[in-house]
Amino acid sequence: MQVIKQYIEEHKQRMLDELFELLRFPSVSADPKYKADVLKTAEYTAAKLREASADNVEVCPTAGYPIVYGEKIIDPAKPTVLMYGHYDVQPADPLELWKTPPFEPTVRDGKIYARGACDDKGQFYMHVKAFELMMQTNTLPCNIKFMIEGEEEVGSSNLGIFVKANTERLKADVVLISDTSMLSMETPSLETGLRGLSYLEVEVTGPNRDLHSGVYGGAVANPATILAKMIASLHDENNHIAIPGFYDEVVQLSDAERNALNSAPYNEEEYKKDLDIDEVWGEKGYSTLERTGTRPTLEVNGIWGGYIGEGAKTVLPSKANAKISMRLVPNQSSEKITELFTQHFLNIAPPYVKVKVTPHHGGEPVVTPTDSVAYQAAQKAITESFGKEPIPTRGGGSIPIVALFEAELGIKTVLMGFGLDSDALHSPNEKYDIYNYYKGIETIPLFYKYFAELS
Amino acid sequence: MQVIKQYIEEHKQRMLDELFELLRFPSVSADPKYKADVLKTAEYTAAKLREASADNVEVCPTAGYPIVYGEKIIDPAKPTVLMYGHYDVQPADPLELWKTPPFEPTVRDGKIYARGACDDKGQFYMHVKAFELMMQTNTLPCNIKFMIEGEEEVGSSNLGIFVKANTERLKADVVLISDTSMLSMETPSLETGLRGLSYLEVEVTGPNRDLHSGVYGGAVANPATILAKMIASLHDENNHIAIPGFYDEVVQLSDAERNALNSAPYNEEEYKKDLDIDEVWGEKGYSTLERTGTRPTLEVNGIWGGYIGEGAKTVLPSKANAKISMRLVPNQSSEKITELFTQHFLNIAPPYVKVKVTPHHGGEPVVTPTDSVAYQAAQKAITESFGKEPIPTRGGGSIPIVALFEAELGIKTVLMGFGLDSDALHSPNEKYDIYNYYKGIETIPLFYKYFAELS
Repeated sequence: MQVIKQYIEEHKQRMLDELFELLRFPSVSADPKYKADVLKTAEYTAAKLREASADNVEVCPTAGYPIVYGEKIIDPAKPTVLMYGHYDVQPADPLELWKTPPFEPTVRDGKIYARGACDDKGQFYMHVKAFELMMQTNTLPCNIKFMIEGEEEVGSSNLGIFVKANTERLKADVVLISDTSMLSMETPSLETGLRGLSYLEVEVTGPNRDLHSGVYGGAVANPATILAKMIASLHDENNHIAIPGFYDEVVQLSDAERNALNSAPYNEEEYKKDLDIDEVWGEKGYSTLERTGTRPTLEVNGIWGGYIGEGAKTVLPSKANAKISMRLVPNQSSEKITELFTQHFLNIAPPYVKVKVTPHHGGEPVVTPTDSVAYQAAQKAITESFGKEPIPTRGGGSIPIVALFEAELGIKTVLMGFGLDSDALHSPNEKYDIYNYYKGIETIPLFYKYFAELS
Repeated sequence: MQVIKQYIEEHKQRMLDELFELLRFPSVSADPKYKADVLKTAEYTAAKLREASADNVEVCPTAGYPIVYGEKIIDPAKPTVLMYGHYDVQPADPLELWKTPPFEPTVRDGKIYARGACDDKGQFYMHVKAFELMMQTNTLPCNIKFMIEGEEEVGSSNLGIFVKANTERLKADVVLISDTSMLSMETPSLETGLRGLSYLEVEVTGPNRDLHSGVYGGAVANPATILAKMIASLHDENNHIAIPGFYDEVVQLSDAERNALNSAPYNEEEYKKDLDIDEVWGEKGYSTLERTGTRPTLEVNGIWGGYIGEGAKTVLPSKANAKISMRLVPNQSSEKITELFTQHFLNIAPPYVKVKVTPHHGGEPVVTPTDSVAYQAAQKAITESFGKEPIPTRGGGSIPIVALFEAELGIKTVLMGFGLDSDALHSPNEKYDIYNYYKGIETIPLFYKYFAELS
């Protein structure tokens, strides 16, 4: 432990400077105009793995953005950890809401503000630095493999192909990922589950052209109004999702599990104050922690149609569109839910309009074991660095790769994240505490230590 | 009649060239970036009135865009016609849907394609040319006054002030407007009513920032979903508008009036084919002609919220907005309906969100008399030039000025329009038939002839 703290102390500034350099690449995978920047980010990541003395570092091409691989095999007989992260980030808009530019990392009050600061550049880079630390201090106790992709924010569509094609190279005993949150630095926690995802886009078409709302209004169905009615019908009066069969595969938690989950610290007043809302919302009969962690949800991520410029235009629009995504829980299947949604949405379309549904991407929900050697190693590592035993929680987000690993490589995952829900992931002014960054670099070597010992 | 046809024949090309010149000005009053062009259009209009030998031509300044005035008083003892039109046009977007540039008039198959071709440049300019014709052929039988404004497409907010301040100058026996449609050239018609308008913008705010839809989805109200539910609730299952008190002042038509209205030729199959829709839509218990002409309506003119760019962003948006307008019929009051909508929309807002309603502009509905001397003069003029008596119809559009004239000047209006519903007003590829343009120039002098005779 002393060795670790000392090494971090001596290399503090450089470790931060390197992260800032990484954060300056606008590696937005959703927007083609950033393609060159995304590719540069992959090269930078590979270079840093080499500097940290990883072997066989390679920027592996895929049909989309490349996957950065690197490894250090100290002894084939020792256990192997496969570290996963992603170097791509979410789009930064709405840009006008950023206090400082999203790709010019800025420190305010001990926090790094930048797109990707927490999700996931700040978190995956902790592993690169922790690896450097173990190599420089000769404390790496087992084998390590890195796999850092560039399409996590757009559905990891090429990762499955890569994993299937590289089962030997990726062989390991556990997957370690830092792309999730803790309850707080005072209340460390370990996520033991993730939700799946089905993301679709819908288009409602009425007349073949925009019409004068005075000449045709009242006699021709308005696609914006019809889309509103269709979206409104997707939740019933108890905010249950009204798609037939949607809940069929959902595993109900036991009362014990629900109580454990609800025992996690949660202050509704602070929660509402942070978001500036008067009331929380959600599925009747469930707490906020259950709604975000253990129940499936349906959200409108975007909606548009008609005249959205300045001033007034009296138009009856020809089309209206929406982006809609659903978070899934065990044992829902992304493919099946996507199919159920598509069928239902086409079924409820009235005869006045034409409806098109286009799937974007999806991922499967997972629950990670809490009785494994790796989970215990993570528990011990956090307990030592935070001085407190971590609470098991259920995360609301989705990391499709986790289910993929189980299916393709037959190995489980440990979700050892150091972010906070208040880090504004996917929002303007995303941040990551410098304290958390160093705390991660300090905790990760302890995980390796205990994982090697317990294995 | 012979004199008229001959004059038009001799000046055909020039009359068309001058209209094209007028159409090339992008006089979009809704968008400040066209300010210089709108002002140039006013100057051009004034110049053309002078050329046609109008007296006291003036570009009258207002708090917004100027009003072009001109007159010819041949004998104060004779009746006076006040001609109204507007030189401003609707925004041209979506530009990509125009086959040829909106401000480069192009003739295809006998039709002029350009923004404003019909609404209202093509139609008001017929009056300038008809005036020139009567002056050149010494056939002007009564006094004439022109008032052509530049803010009709944005609510004519300064016209009322101008009219109040100029009641003497604007003194007349009737208002003549060509800014409406006929059923077809084979079935000439005269509009005897116009709908009023209330246009508002609504904003629904949920959390104080865009949120990660995985971390918060299901526990925080989504403003796009809430807005959809609120909009969906504005029409009941029979497509009646569900705002308390909305229909209180609506005058029900007599069976005779309804039958007269429904006797107008209307081919539902052609109507649907033209719009490429499978079914018409609307308020239960009313025909398409009644729905557009005699019943109030509520339309979503625009809606937006969340991520509307390429690809997928898993965001729970902070805000969602919509532009909503209502068409009003006698005796609804725009001010009262705006108030009723605002109150209702705030009332149905759930506690999870904050709602803001901002009125844009409005106008009052009108019904014009069919027993007046002026209406009979219009009937005779159309019967002579079209060889068929015009059918009285009710228009769905709004021309706020008509109610204003009645209130401020105590005179009625005749709506002698030569457009067609298929002219794509407010839409891409707006058009006006060259045939209709000349037909109007031919009919207008006949109106003056019969109006003088019958007065």
